[in-house]
Amino acid sequence: MSAATPRPSAVPTLADIQAPVREGLERVTEELRRIIAADFSLITEVNEHLLRMRGKMFRPTLTLLSSQVADRPSPRAPTLAAVIELMHVATLVHDDAVDHSTLRRGMPTINALFSHQVSVIMGDYLYSKALGTLVKNGDMEPLRILTDVSTQMTIGEMRQLQQFDRLAFSEDDYHALNRAKTASLLSGACEIGAISGAERYRAELKRYGELLGMAFQVADDLLDYTADAAVTGKPTGLDLRERKVTLPLIAALRDMSAGARARVDALFVQETPDDASIAEVVAIVAESGGIEYARRRGEAFADEADAVLQALPETAARAALSDAITYVMERRW
Amino acid sequence: MSAATPRPSAVPTLADIQAPVREGLERVTEELRRIIAADFSLITEVNEHLLRMRGKMFRPTLTLLSSQVADRPSPRAPTLAAVIELMHVATLVHDDAVDHSTLRRGMPTINALFSHQVSVIMGDYLYSKALGTLVKNGDMEPLRILTDVSTQMTIGEMRQLQQFDRLAFSEDDYHALNRAKTASLLSGACEIGAISGAERYRAELKRYGELLGMAFQVADDLLDYTADAAVTGKPTGLDLRERKVTLPLIAALRDMSAGARARVDALFVQETPDDASIAEVVAIVAESGGIEYARRRGEAFADEADAVLQALPETAARAALSDAITYVMERRW
Repeated sequence: MSAATPRPSAVPTLADIQAPVREGLERVTEELRRIIAADFSLITEVNEHLLRMRGKMFRPTLTLLSSQVADRPSPRAPTLAAVIELMHVATLVHDDAVDHSTLRRGMPTINALFSHQVSVIMGDYLYSKALGTLVKNGDMEPLRILTDVSTQMTIGEMRQLQQFDRLAFSEDDYHALNRAKTASLLSGACEIGAISGAERYRAELKRYGELLGMAFQVADDLLDYTADAAVTGKPTGLDLRERKVTLPLIAALRDMSAGARARVDALFVQETPDDASIAEVVAIVAESGGIEYARRRGEAFADEADAVLQALPETAARAALSDAITYVMERRW
Repeated sequence: MSAATPRPSAVPTLADIQAPVREGLERVTEELRRIIAADFSLITEVNEHLLRMRGKMFRPTLTLLSSQVADRPSPRAPTLAAVIELMHVATLVHDDAVDHSTLRRGMPTINALFSHQVSVIMGDYLYSKALGTLVKNGDMEPLRILTDVSTQMTIGEMRQLQQFDRLAFSEDDYHALNRAKTASLLSGACEIGAISGAERYRAELKRYGELLGMAFQVADDLLDYTADAAVTGKPTGLDLRERKVTLPLIAALRDMSAGARARVDALFVQETPDDASIAEVVAIVAESGGIEYARRRGEAFADEADAVLQALPETAARAALSDAITYVMERRW
């Protein structure tokens, strides 16, 4: 990434990144189980499903790594990391309720398996359990950080719902949305890690998390234009199918012929764009330099994130945080 | 209610009850506006609608009255009362999202006016703003009380979703559900009032709020069996239409002939019970003494609530809290 630490030639795996915090992550899983446990069968069933579909624990990993960058992690870090994962899961459960999604991580959503009602209420349950845990432990600073993150995330969601004139969505709007929706929680995960063992690097880790989140979202949105679907061998164009405007298109719109623009406009008046229009607009975005621009913008966030890490002592945790940047940029999942 | 304070012959109005806290309630409204304000048009629009459909401010009234029972209300009470009202509104917004309701208090719901998505996210926004306000002010005890209330309420909602064998719902189940769903927030409203001016009556006011909530829910459920609808002149039986089992039916089931029980069973196998079945079951519940039993049970909660108040000094606030019991029991709204 930055000149000081050239990016490793082999892309680090998640296991590499999690190696310094393997034990802590086991504690996080135990804490997750403990916090959400309820003496009530429906909640127990939903919990078991949520624990089965548990993701990569990327946010708890960031919290634990951040707590270790100065080699003095607090024993409270795994509980705080579990609370952050719970907030993340609560958000996913409500997202799926809002979108009426039926699949996530290849498994049925709470929506699909139980009901829409259960999703809305279960999201509320997880959120109140997460914050209740911080309250019980008197963790005022994490509470401040996470209620603030939660407000930002909901405002981000509302922002996304209110895209009336989608093609007028600017690059600034795009980054502001990502900052609220994605980067705020990654930043909070790192900041809370910092206050659990590396207080004097709090500002740096908070900033690192934000930049990582911004890079992450750009990389994610790029995949839609570049990754080949397993079956068709063509980019999936899922965002275009939902007429969602992301950075590659925003950049391309600035450098596009009138004819190309007319074809983009034509796609965006369709309620459900057809495959041919999508393939055509994907090609236009590539030709107009939108993919290249987004890639450079993502790299710039990644480089900036890595530069922030240079202020930290050279620990295994710092190296893993640096690897996390590469991991996010090179992701194909 | 209790022998010491005979119930006034005229039923107190809400204005009577709110008289000792009129000024404080104006501050609550200002605080509500301040807390939910956002620099974002969609949220502003939703907020304006929520403020227009603002209800009777019953919970903030309880908080302010509780804070005054010892004549030393804290200046923070209106902010805390506003936070409680916000929690209540967040719950209503999610309830309407869960039930796909289109009307509340005679006005269109957020659901109907905006969208289902907006309801789910807006509920999250209000909840995180409410808790965020407590965090900013360092109000740790109110935070502890309200995250606990919120967990209880979500468990109550889940409990309600999981009524498989509806007619096996016992009186204990019924009261446990009401304690979680309704009484917990009224109790929290009074307890938070107490810690804002009358700390030494905290246990009493917490208990008073819980009993008031239990009485309130029984009175509410009775209306369904006793209040005449404006148009038909017959009880509405809305709960029976949704096959919701409440105290009058639970009590009646204990003292019912086999023939009557068969007719109740017949109603509960209908997906949408017809008017004739509903009218018949309403009559059976009355004949089997279910309405009379529920009325006595409600009165017992009310008497107990009033007895708890006797431990408090004789202030205008205490008198208004006592009136609130009568108001809840005699409600026709």
